[in-house]
Amino acid sequence: MNSPQISSKIKEQVHKAREASLVLANLDNLSKNKILFNLGESLRENYSEILVENSRDMAEAEKMLKSGELSESACKRVFLNEDKIEQMAQNCESVASLPDPSGQVLKATRLDEGLELFRVSCPIGVILVIFESRPDVVIQIFALALKSGNAVILKGGKEAQNSNRVLTGLIHKTLDTYKTAPINSVSLVESRDEVAELVKMSAELDLIIPRGSNELVQHIQKNAQVPVLGHADGICHVFLDEAADEAKSLEVSLDSKLDYPAVCNASETLLVHQKFSDELFSEILLKMQDSGVELRVCFETEQRLQNFPQFKLKKAVEEDWKTEYIDLILAVKTVKSAEEAVQHINHYGSKHTDTIVTENSELAEWFMNAVDSAGVFWNASTRFADGFRYGLGAEVGVSTGKIHARGPVGLEGLVIYKYKLYGNGHGVGRYSDAKRELLHKNIGMD
Amino acid sequence: MNSPQISSKIKEQVHKAREASLVLANLDNLSKNKILFNLGESLRENYSEILVENSRDMAEAEKMLKSGELSESACKRVFLNEDKIEQMAQNCESVASLPDPSGQVLKATRLDEGLELFRVSCPIGVILVIFESRPDVVIQIFALALKSGNAVILKGGKEAQNSNRVLTGLIHKTLDTYKTAPINSVSLVESRDEVAELVKMSAELDLIIPRGSNELVQHIQKNAQVPVLGHADGICHVFLDEAADEAKSLEVSLDSKLDYPAVCNASETLLVHQKFSDELFSEILLKMQDSGVELRVCFETEQRLQNFPQFKLKKAVEEDWKTEYIDLILAVKTVKSAEEAVQHINHYGSKHTDTIVTENSELAEWFMNAVDSAGVFWNASTRFADGFRYGLGAEVGVSTGKIHARGPVGLEGLVIYKYKLYGNGHGVGRYSDAKRELLHKNIGMD
Repeated sequence: MNSPQISSKIKEQVHKAREASLVLANLDNLSKNKILFNLGESLRENYSEILVENSRDMAEAEKMLKSGELSESACKRVFLNEDKIEQMAQNCESVASLPDPSGQVLKATRLDEGLELFRVSCPIGVILVIFESRPDVVIQIFALALKSGNAVILKGGKEAQNSNRVLTGLIHKTLDTYKTAPINSVSLVESRDEVAELVKMSAELDLIIPRGSNELVQHIQKNAQVPVLGHADGICHVFLDEAADEAKSLEVSLDSKLDYPAVCNASETLLVHQKFSDELFSEILLKMQDSGVELRVCFETEQRLQNFPQFKLKKAVEEDWKTEYIDLILAVKTVKSAEEAVQHINHYGSKHTDTIVTENSELAEWFMNAVDSAGVFWNASTRFADGFRYGLGAEVGVSTGKIHARGPVGLEGLVIYKYKLYGNGHGVGRYSDAKRELLHKNIGMD
Repeated sequence: MNSPQISSKIKEQVHKAREASLVLANLDNLSKNKILFNLGESLRENYSEILVENSRDMAEAEKMLKSGELSESACKRVFLNEDKIEQMAQNCESVASLPDPSGQVLKATRLDEGLELFRVSCPIGVILVIFESRPDVVIQIFALALKSGNAVILKGGKEAQNSNRVLTGLIHKTLDTYKTAPINSVSLVESRDEVAELVKMSAELDLIIPRGSNELVQHIQKNAQVPVLGHADGICHVFLDEAADEAKSLEVSLDSKLDYPAVCNASETLLVHQKFSDELFSEILLKMQDSGVELRVCFETEQRLQNFPQFKLKKAVEEDWKTEYIDLILAVKTVKSAEEAVQHINHYGSKHTDTIVTENSELAEWFMNAVDSAGVFWNASTRFADGFRYGLGAEVGVSTGKIHARGPVGLEGLVIYKYKLYGNGHGVGRYSDAKRELLHKNIGMD
């Protein structure tokens, strides 16, 4: 905390979160679950108070929409109703029902008689989560953070500040009922200046999770002196190999693009082997076009499709290969080989999720090892890259980083481990000069 | 690569390392082991060439020692002889004998018939390792990086540049013999300017491991836009509780300080409960003093020891609680409670390794959860915090960070995972509107 520009208010808030995290590290699973069940009930009981506060935000959000400060989709995400509050309550209960990710013995080694080493999962500590619009994120993140034993500082959007406050207030009320977890297990930060200060407090936070727009995430990744878990872009590729099956090519390429184009795991670029059937290629692209997709194609693709006059094609430019459209736009490129496809993906992709369609199993295995992405699929839609579809139970976010956690991150991304060594007064001097050897025996589960 | 100040030479080097890493990600264990065994033989065969180059470095290092540019211990670490070369060769062979950390199935889930998801360990990618003095680090790090499938860029100290070059040359010769792993799997960077450029290339490196002085590590941690694995300080604590056993108190406190004071896992501060026996306390401190340890004590400790005139005590100041002496100096503090001990450790410590001596098992368990350090010990010396003592087989470094890997880090710290999804043409549309449910069944090992 050397930076003079950090206010004492923020310092105090981080300090209290740190203190809370040390208490949470000792909290048992039953106590955590009691809090989560009580919070679920409290959300149901106080739904009218929540809706009153949310309607104040909505009035403000609609003004921001008119003035162009807020997009229509962001404005929609602020909105809560009784159904959404019920979903939040159920979310608390479903997180409670998951196994405690903390306190798991990951490895156990007997070093000597009466000297046993355990690698045990434990909370990370203090986590800052930055999000936009959706106030239900307050409940979702608190539930995940509490379950994993972390203290969390939340920075929500101004457009949902009254909703965020009332929800945080309900959490504090529940924490105050049990007094097992400190009130400061969760706290709210509201101004942009405060978040800028927080991002600089490298020694005092353990992890930042930005959830929101590309710009937000890139800004955090660039400025944080703390590890950041998240993803800025989702530039996902479908590669149709020369040995691709017809039906699989159709389903995987269309589902990847059309199932839900506005999300990070939708495909943005279709790579097609030069020996892939021109007929099938045009059939796929025609279905895309008929579904409203704008096609931006490379020169070779344009040549291949010149006998199909029904196409309205645009020329792809360099920028198209590195753009996350999250829209009904598809970049299309013909490649000479699977190697060229892999090179393209590793160069222009965002390490999110990429898929190959082929009947050549050896090539598929090579592709999955050579593509440097969190998700590498064979004959499956990129849209499967999702914590719930993966069966992780809950999703903290999607990481395109290369350490700690990758791809859709569940509760296990909020824990790390520590080494616990249980001795009997042992010093290492007993083992010097080969007087005695360490055993290094795995301790079985029996 | 937006920064204009990055030279094309460094860009090219990183680019080639990236290309090499993608090949390494597909390299089988047998091919890796062949390279490591061949390199071991090559080191033995070329020992005289290595010693010639090393003697040139030693001549230079001794000049630097005289001018005060290099410390005596750093100068010693540059020195190689036939024994050390044999150790390097054996190191290659022992890393080869470890299981491949890459390609391990960590989790397997059946999402549906013909749709199976695997979380598989894989290399991280391109790693920059910065080290000082010891040229044998070139071989050690290359062996670990190759075994885990990572490309590595090495930045050694100027004082060992001829040794580093000849060793890197031998690695390149071995790689060229087999042509399975690219020459650019390992490369050397020599100037400080180049390393400054590399530290800035956030998008292009995946991990930085600084091994060396506190200043070096702190500088890297502060300036890197890439995750850093390492530790700056090792401020380890021994806490003697009121319920501590006499023999255990003696062995643990003395071994932690005296076994090897110049290393990061030696203790720097002794915390003693106010109800701990004054007789035993003075016996321990007297043994410390007799072994040449300078004692810097708090006011209460001074009071407790006033009946023991044989002590030469210094008053501890605030700075003492946060200093890594790595020397025969010990800070000593009397605490009112285990809570105060834990608060002191979490406030002043470096999250490395801390130990409690007590017969109270409940208190010990609480201490181990509440102390936020990579290693939390009960009745055992802090000196056990070491990759080889832990049985990790090889040590990449010691991490005091809170994500990815913590404490002594073995080969598993050089891998991450990716999700491989094997489908049969599946799109997520098949599961929309509850048409069909995903199974999420664990796939057993049978």
